[in-house]
Amino acid sequence: MNNSIKFKLNPELDLIFERIVDVPPELVWAAWTTPEQLKQWFTPAPWKTVDCEIDLRPGGMFSTVMRSPEGQEFPNLGCYLEVIKNERLVWTNALEPGFRPSKRPVEMPGHECAEFSLTVVISLEPHEKGTQYTALVMHSNKEDRAKHEAMGFQKGWGIALDQLVATIKKS
Amino acid sequence: MNNSIKFKLNPELDLIFERIVDVPPELVWAAWTTPEQLKQWFTPAPWKTVDCEIDLRPGGMFSTVMRSPEGQEFPNLGCYLEVIKNERLVWTNALEPGFRPSKRPVEMPGHECAEFSLTVVISLEPHEKGTQYTALVMHSNKEDRAKHEAMGFQKGWGIALDQLVATIKKS
Repeated sequence: MNNSIKFKLNPELDLIFERIVDVPPELVWAAWTTPEQLKQWFTPAPWKTVDCEIDLRPGGMFSTVMRSPEGQEFPNLGCYLEVIKNERLVWTNALEPGFRPSKRPVEMPGHECAEFSLTVVISLEPHEKGTQYTALVMHSNKEDRAKHEAMGFQKGWGIALDQLVATIKKS
Repeated sequence: MNNSIKFKLNPELDLIFERIVDVPPELVWAAWTTPEQLKQWFTPAPWKTVDCEIDLRPGGMFSTVMRSPEGQEFPNLGCYLEVIKNERLVWTNALEPGFRPSKRPVEMPGHECAEFSLTVVISLEPHEKGTQYTALVMHSNKEDRAKHEAMGFQKGWGIALDQLVATIKKS
């Protein structure tokens, strides 16, 4: 990571989710970067992730399709920005695969979750109990940050991480 | 470049500028990545680039300030996405430094040039006469591409490249 940029929380624009989990970084990494695994935990139930495509390199595709309990599907298309195996994964929906600027806003009628741009930094550090897990979510403005927080950011990321750990433990 | 993504022209969304120049790739690279050099050629005269900051790594700042003949200043803030020395330089204004999603649209009252999002891929290949120089400019939609083309994309990039070569030759 020598030449990598340092990410620093900007409390006015960012949200952060931190927790220690009792599974090792390599397995958390695999859960984030393997479509078959990611589909099992990525979306808090009763929503589901029904499709996922991953091209794990800077500029590569990160695509998911979420399905609501009512059966409506919502595609999310983004690309990876930084991939440091078992340590750091950075992706955004402000760029499409191949680094092309995304159309905005992304429309999800009736749902706010993809109506703003995000960059997500997942950091994994070895910890005596397993992994220090940190998700830093960057927004372009205060309003988007506030909207995202009010949607239940902490709760949603907590449920998803519970599901991630459960997926690892049952496999 | 082994694990790098391949960029392919999408004629509906992209503009491309290609030319062979009689200076070597290393000097073209230096002209693109050294603030003092870039300020001498980046903006077709009589516009000027009066400030430039470069942090040459993925996620690092690429900032310029252009000044109109009337003296009005227009800042442009973006970040690098891929840096392969002497070969390929990729940057976007859809992300700010540190990969944060940009506010959009970027306002430049009276000028259209930064009112849309871009990703630029500069490719340099050694050529018997010097360098095969290619600029691929990606847009998020057809309207932005059309607007950019109508603004004089080919002419503007041609003048800037003439200035770049002249800067190299006089130093």
